[in-house]
Amino acid sequence: MSQPAESEKKFRITQVTPAERQQREDSLAVEEPMEIRIVFGPPERRTGRSLSITMRTPDHDFELAAGFLFTEGIVDRAEQILGFEFCGEIPEGRQRPNIVRVELDSQLNVQIQNLQRHFYTTSSCGICGKGSLEAIRSTGIKPVDSPLTVRLETIYQLSDRLREAQSVFQQTGGIHAAGLFNQSGELITQREDVGRHNALDKLVGNQLLEGQLPLHQHILMVSGRSSFELVQKAAAAQFPVMVSVGAPSSLAVELADEFGITLIGFASGKRFNVYTHSHRMID
Amino acid sequence: MSQPAESEKKFRITQVTPAERQQREDSLAVEEPMEIRIVFGPPERRTGRSLSITMRTPDHDFELAAGFLFTEGIVDRAEQILGFEFCGEIPEGRQRPNIVRVELDSQLNVQIQNLQRHFYTTSSCGICGKGSLEAIRSTGIKPVDSPLTVRLETIYQLSDRLREAQSVFQQTGGIHAAGLFNQSGELITQREDVGRHNALDKLVGNQLLEGQLPLHQHILMVSGRSSFELVQKAAAAQFPVMVSVGAPSSLAVELADEFGITLIGFASGKRFNVYTHSHRMID
Repeated sequence: MSQPAESEKKFRITQVTPAERQQREDSLAVEEPMEIRIVFGPPERRTGRSLSITMRTPDHDFELAAGFLFTEGIVDRAEQILGFEFCGEIPEGRQRPNIVRVELDSQLNVQIQNLQRHFYTTSSCGICGKGSLEAIRSTGIKPVDSPLTVRLETIYQLSDRLREAQSVFQQTGGIHAAGLFNQSGELITQREDVGRHNALDKLVGNQLLEGQLPLHQHILMVSGRSSFELVQKAAAAQFPVMVSVGAPSSLAVELADEFGITLIGFASGKRFNVYTHSHRMID
Repeated sequence: MSQPAESEKKFRITQVTPAERQQREDSLAVEEPMEIRIVFGPPERRTGRSLSITMRTPDHDFELAAGFLFTEGIVDRAEQILGFEFCGEIPEGRQRPNIVRVELDSQLNVQIQNLQRHFYTTSSCGICGKGSLEAIRSTGIKPVDSPLTVRLETIYQLSDRLREAQSVFQQTGGIHAAGLFNQSGELITQREDVGRHNALDKLVGNQLLEGQLPLHQHILMVSGRSSFELVQKAAAAQFPVMVSVGAPSSLAVELADEFGITLIGFASGKRFNVYTHSHRMID
């Protein structure tokens, strides 16, 4: 590439070891805010609204918007999205604005209250883990019903394959990745971001726009830990198997258990832990 | 402790290696929603409002609320907080509710629009990194003016000391830590959470309530990566030196540069990178 990537930026740094202090140039992952705006409603009362501002690594911004709208329950299929455009000023030194405007089908009944940030306040039990699970159910996300089985040997290879595919990560060490693998452990596509939820939204958005959802025959791997939010997004895309390099949280395990997802953690080299639905793992 | 800690929970898991599949019990970090509500305004029109719902690891919840209110610019000293209480139902299997109500001084002029989620929309440039920096300035956070210097040898020891102090982390590997160190590298206090911003809010909240802010003579170490949000919170507490185990993002470096913070990354064993204000590092 002759143009510098939008997703990294060079800085002068000082590298310190007991032997020396060395000045050198280093690439870091870019973090910039992105705003998602939607335009929705019937022709006679078309409405525009700012939905979210997230700190993200620029790249695949339309996929990020699509994935966010899907995993948060605003759209449930690609046809409901009529188009994307960048709007607003182009920031200094950048190639595109940081605002993505998404035109939604006029028939779509937009449920703003389904946005995750409002989940907890609408659940009947109030503020607790059980209420959070209940809130996910109320968005219409269904348990994953998939006969997929995966060989242990396949899982062993995933962390290396995801790492090999990470371009920016290799240079900066500062970015999360989400990878889509088939049953044999071949990497189909992967996305990166300083925000781990953004990396997954980009991946799911890509698959939504490609018409590939639901992902009943695929494996998701994320580079960090598994949180409630990540498992919720995996459930929206209907992944039967989700693998992380780090540990899951309690609520991530409870959500995966309830939604029929095989949740794997500490997958690095030839070992891993299975937290839920271990029947999908075969020798 | 005879009672199980609120911050961890036991699960039956399957540990897989090429040699065997072993069922065992494993502790995971608890993730549960917590709502922060504030009560503010003069006696004749006292107002209650839900300010935030965050996924956190239960423990030090009042500190988390205090730190959030401080780093988000709602309060600027401990005296503005009259009291805390838990309210709402106690979820099944838990010891306390997940809602924290904070009574604020009636004189306090609460600037709801200063909340970080609104930052970007009120900045004059709109949505970009520069606008984000500008928005931080507009909240009244000042550049850190501190003559503190730190020996390289001190930085080398921090990652081990933070890890040694992490109780839950050692068992689950699934939790972030933020540690407060003095100039000699002695750990003063540390806090943990599944959310890295929460770990730092708990630490800053602790120091606010102890009357120890600003932290002009101290070093902050965080277990993960340095994001814009974390550096913003470090600037609010006026840390002159911030160290992370992982990489910083571009915007984290730009914010640290502008706010006079020495930002260090990849600090593990006897090596680290200095991204900004390296004059504070001495042999």
